Amino acid sequence: MLANLPKAVTIVDVTTRDGFQMETGPFIPTAAKIEIVNRIARSGIPEIQVTSFVHPRAVPQLADAAEVFQGIDRLPGVKYRALVPNAVGAERALAAGADELNLMVSVTDSHSLANANRTTADALALLEPVLELAERAGVPATAGGATGLGCPFEGFPPVERLYEVYGFFYERGVRKMSVADTAGMANPLLVYDRLSRLRERFPEASFALHLHDTRRMATANILAGLEAGVTEYDGAVGGLGGCPYSPGATGNIATEELVHFFDALGISTGVDLDALLTIARRLREIVGHELDSAILRAGKSTDLLGPRTTGQTKLVS
Amino acid sequence: MLANLPKAVTIVDVTTRDGFQMETGPFIPTAAKIEIVNRIARSGIPEIQVTSFVHPRAVPQLADAAEVFQGIDRLPGVKYRALVPNAVGAERALAAGADELNLMVSVTDSHSLANANRTTADALALLEPVLELAERAGVPATAGGATGLGCPFEGFPPVERLYEVYGFFYERGVRKMSVADTAGMANPLLVYDRLSRLRERFPEASFALHLHDTRRMATANILAGLEAGVTEYDGAVGGLGGCPYSPGATGNIATEELVHFFDALGISTGVDLDALLTIARRLREIVGHELDSAILRAGKSTDLLGPRTTGQTKLVS
Repeated sequence: MLANLPKAVTIVDVTTRDGFQMETGPFIPTAAKIEIVNRIARSGIPEIQVTSFVHPRAVPQLADAAEVFQGIDRLPGVKYRALVPNAVGAERALAAGADELNLMVSVTDSHSLANANRTTADALALLEPVLELAERAGVPATAGGATGLGCPFEGFPPVERLYEVYGFFYERGVRKMSVADTAGMANPLLVYDRLSRLRERFPEASFALHLHDTRRMATANILAGLEAGVTEYDGAVGGLGGCPYSPGATGNIATEELVHFFDALGISTGVDLDALLTIARRLREIVGHELDSAILRAGKSTDLLGPRTTGQTKLVS
Repeated sequence: MLANLPKAVTIVDVTTRDGFQMETGPFIPTAAKIEIVNRIARSGIPEIQVTSFVHPRAVPQLADAAEVFQGIDRLPGVKYRALVPNAVGAERALAAGADELNLMVSVTDSHSLANANRTTADALALLEPVLELAERAGVPATAGGATGLGCPFEGFPPVERLYEVYGFFYERGVRKMSVADTAGMANPLLVYDRLSRLRERFPEASFALHLHDTRRMATANILAGLEAGVTEYDGAVGGLGGCPYSPGATGNIATEELVHFFDALGISTGVDLDALLTIARRLREIVGHELDSAILRAGKSTDLLGPRTTGQTKLVS
């Protein structure tokens, strides 16, 4: 595994969608959202899930999706994505100029019912017109499967279930997929198995991994993902986000933790880690609470205090 | 890597030494220490670092080392170890009936000066009589190297430095070694490189890994350790412990996180995870503060809420 690491990976940042969506405190000003998206783009992140064109009643925090899209700079080479839950959202996202429409379903019925009040099949049916809208507009659609690597209600979905869900999208021309460990349940063997088999089953599609570090297995899961050939990883600055149905679930793996890990492995991300840490500190001010970011807390493993020549304490361990 | 996982690993618990040593609150009653050691042994842990025979002035929390050793049950098949900093400590540990004397130095001079007010070479010289005492008593000595995989002052020690430090012990007959990522700085490439080379250089010795999850790389580092042939891992229940010289450093990787991870990988530890979680909850009462234990917080990835048939919320993500 360690002998066959890729030279480079792509980091997708989902802070302002997946992260902000879970912020139930005061409304984050549109200008602050725009500032964060712009800073993330300038840090070198090549793909940003900017917002979700969900109904404002469902997620009031993202009610300004169109204004955010209108306000952000559009850096060349950066893809600005939008999550769209249905046809109405897709039309709004296309009107706002999204580079990519992200579709998401829960792979398990229990999570789909809890999250969207409908089964996975019903949720997929609802996405059919979205795929048609995207195709007509010539804008790529991508597909993400929540709980694809573990559902807090049902456990680990069998691979056949993944084939069904991702097959739905593949048959309809989607070539960019992502698999989420929404509740932080996955382990390296599962990640390697599922991602290898999905890549084999749908050879023209690429698969990204969306991980949570809930049970301290995220970086081990990344190694398994790399071994399975996955070169795209989602993160949220400051580890924002989470899963409301999983007891003790943490947020997304922090984008700065991802970059720090890949830097340590000598795998290029093109992202400036110090810039990300500055964004994380600004984000802490914006959301008004502590962030679950190991690198923000402890610093990079290359941050040194400098050699010592004299003893200062006497704790013998 | 994932194709060549070992069938079994050994978990060494250091809760009552490394963990309690960092507890600066009220003195933990001797009876509580004895209770925890006994419970850990009954959970299936085969090696326990019970305490440290350090001078009571240096670590008042462990002033009852002899009483703890006297009070614990001695389960057959379980090794009850003692950390000893010097000859006086070694004599006390031998008198108390320790199965194994654990010696520890800092691999880097800066950390050694900060921690023990002497250079690594001076610290090694101080251990010479300890090794002689152990040999005379016919009790095995083991050697651990703090900051062996990263020093907050100096960075990553070169492999030559590791050869020197572990060579000192190897030449004196020590065959059980451990390497510590004291400040949670190591990455999988470094772990694989250093542990492979140490095992090659000292072929008659076994090497254990002592990891901290400070920068969310601990389980990835375990995968690298497994690939390098390491089958012994230290943990502290509840993630107790820490490193006073590393900003934001966390405690040891929690024993229950280790066991949960190996369970997920299908690697046998012989340890009852539920029993460990019960110990962690009891430990939380004993130390009187929250523990940094992901599995205590989130539950096992096999703990399910059961399938759902109806929607209960309407958060569209």
